[in-house]
This record gives sequence, C-alpha cells and structure tokens, in this order.
Amino acid sequence: MPQPIVFSFVGGNTGRWRVENASTIVGEPLKLVSRVDVHEQGKAPAGLVPVWELKGAISNTRYTKRAELVQLSARQETLGRQQATCAALIPIRKNSAWWDLAQDERRAIFEEASRHISIGMDYLPGVARRLHHSRELGEPFDFLTWFEFAPSDASAFAEMLHRLRATAEWEYVDRETELLLRMD
Amino acid sequence: MPQPIVFSFVGGNTGRWRVENASTIVGEPLKLVSRVDVHEQGKAPAGLVPVWELKGAISNTRYTKRAELVQLSARQETLGRQQATCAALIPIRKNSAWWDLAQDERRAIFEEASRHISIGMDYLPGVARRLHHSRELGEPFDFLTWFEFAPSDASAFAEMLHRLRATAEWEYVDRETELLLRMD
Repeated sequence: MPQPIVFSFVGGNTGRWRVENASTIVGEPLKLVSRVDVHEQGKAPAGLVPVWELKGAISNTRYTKRAELVQLSARQETLGRQQATCAALIPIRKNSAWWDLAQDERRAIFEEASRHISIGMDYLPGVARRLHHSRELGEPFDFLTWFEFAPSDASAFAEMLHRLRATAEWEYVDRETELLLRMD
Repeated sequence: MPQPIVFSFVGGNTGRWRVENASTIVGEPLKLVSRVDVHEQGKAPAGLVPVWELKGAISNTRYTKRAELVQLSARQETLGRQQATCAALIPIRKNSAWWDLAQDERRAIFEEASRHISIGMDYLPGVARRLHHSRELGEPFDFLTWFEFAPSDASAFAEMLHRLRATAEWEYVDRETELLLRMD
C-alpha cells in the first residue's frame, strides 16, 4: 500500500457534483455552495475557485475486526459506478469526551452498543462509501465520509443516516453537515 | 481537547539537541545532522535551516485499553524534566502487511503477542515518551516517538529498545532510525 492518499473536497461554484440539499445536523454550518469537486490533493482541476476546502486521508481501519472486514469486502461496491449518480459528503467532528476514551471503550460504543458496522452493512451493496481521516491534518472536522448510490437507493440512504444518528456513538458528534449531491 | 497538535522535528546544524549517535536500524537512512530542534508546527525558531523536517500529530490512543491507560497514567512522567538531558527521536515506518491487518489483528500482535505496552511500562517513570502520528500527513515515516530520560537511565532505555525490536510487532517495521540526543 502506498502512503495514505489525501483527498480534497472543494465547495464552490464549479465542480462535478451539484449540491441538491445542504443540512447542518449539529454545530457550526458550512458555508453554502452550489457545487462540490473531489480530487486527490495537488490535482485540483484548472479554474477551481474554492469557497471551502476539506481534506482527509484514506487510512487503515480503526475499529473493524477481521471477521467484519471479510463480511464487508464480500458485499461492498466500489466508487464510480455508472448508476451511482447520487452522492453525499458528510463531514463529522466528535467531541473531546470521545477522543479521551480508550480504544476498547470507543470500540464498545462504536459497534457493540451502536452497531455502526452492522447498520452500514444493511445498505450494501447499494450504498458505496469511502472514509477519510482529517483529525491529524488539523482540519475543522475529524472525518469526511463520501457515499455514492443510485437514485433508487436515496430513501434507503436516508434511513441509514437516521438509524446511525439515533445511536449512542452519535451523542459524541458535536459538528455534522450533510451535503446531498447529484451528478448532472 | 483542542485539535491534535502537529510537532516538527528538524535536523540541521542548529537546534536545542545535539546528536550523539545516529543509527539506521532498517531501511533507508536519514541524512546525518549534528543538531535536532523540536517545535510546534508553525513556531520554528528564527534562523533554523532544516536539512530535513519530520512532522507528526499527537492523536488519540489506537490500541491502549482503559485498564492499561490507568496503569500508564499512574506511572508515566511528563516531558521537560530538568534531569532528563538525554532524548531520543525514533522515526518508524511499518509495511503494508501491517496496515492491511484488521484492528483486532494489530492489537493482538501489538500487545498480546509483543507486549509493547507492558515493555514500555517496565521503564516508567524513568523514560518519558510522546508518540506522534505521521502516516496521515503523507510523511516518510508512520510514527515519530520522542523519549526523554536522565543519563542514568540510558542503559535501561537501550535495553527497552532491544526488547521491543525482538518482538513479532517489529517484523512489520521496514524503516527505522534511532537518533540519540543530548541537551548541551
């Protein structure tokens, strides 16, 4: 595996994805933009004028056990599917109470109490996702999750978010924005 | 807790710490320098001319369980003790086989098989340490560990490194340099 790849998510008036819906779930809002562009760090398309830029690195798993990885790998789909013309960018920050927990405590809340992995699994292979870690980069959010799905999976995707936000894990989320995007 | 703080470790001809010994344990060597400076990112002292600069972020624990954290907290000392005129900077990179493991597999190698936490505990409170995460920053190493100890703890420190390098965990280390430093 090469060095972790850092991706930039750029909000502005240009970019491949049109913002269909922007909701502040908790905490300080992100400035409203009409388009979002996604590219590898340092590979910004010419002419891109960012209103904001959020960065995150693809990294190793932090909570997922081998048995769960095997199940996920068997079901999950890759990004860039032709029918996946819907996307979502969900930046999240967790509070200090979360980060001060030990590894076993975070894992217990994440999966044994909140079923984060299991809930996500219920929406495979329809909803593809990629997690980006931002906390070590000194970014305003800790994670950026990028989702892609077909329009026919949009209501299932909304249900998944609803279930996740009702969990014990989400009590530690102190900033969250949801950007629903369309490729057109 | 604020955003993770990024520290810069700068090798050159100036800086607070004199390099007493530089050893390449495995992989590509770091260029030899006579002094090392340590500062928070963006707070470089005037006149610093880096030969190299390594960066890493203080972040949350990745493997340590609550019971271990409690034991560590009871015994570990802070950096900056007056008698701690010896320091060491040990940059480490692990190979892709390590990073491709699931969380439970890495934990089992790290502690149940290799006793990484337990070994470190044997050298508390003499050897103080701070771990910096570099992998997400796109740096050449994955971790930078900084140690401080009194001259009377130097041989115990060397023993600790010897024990750690004999573990199953260290089979995944593919680049490691050891810089032994003196404050004078």
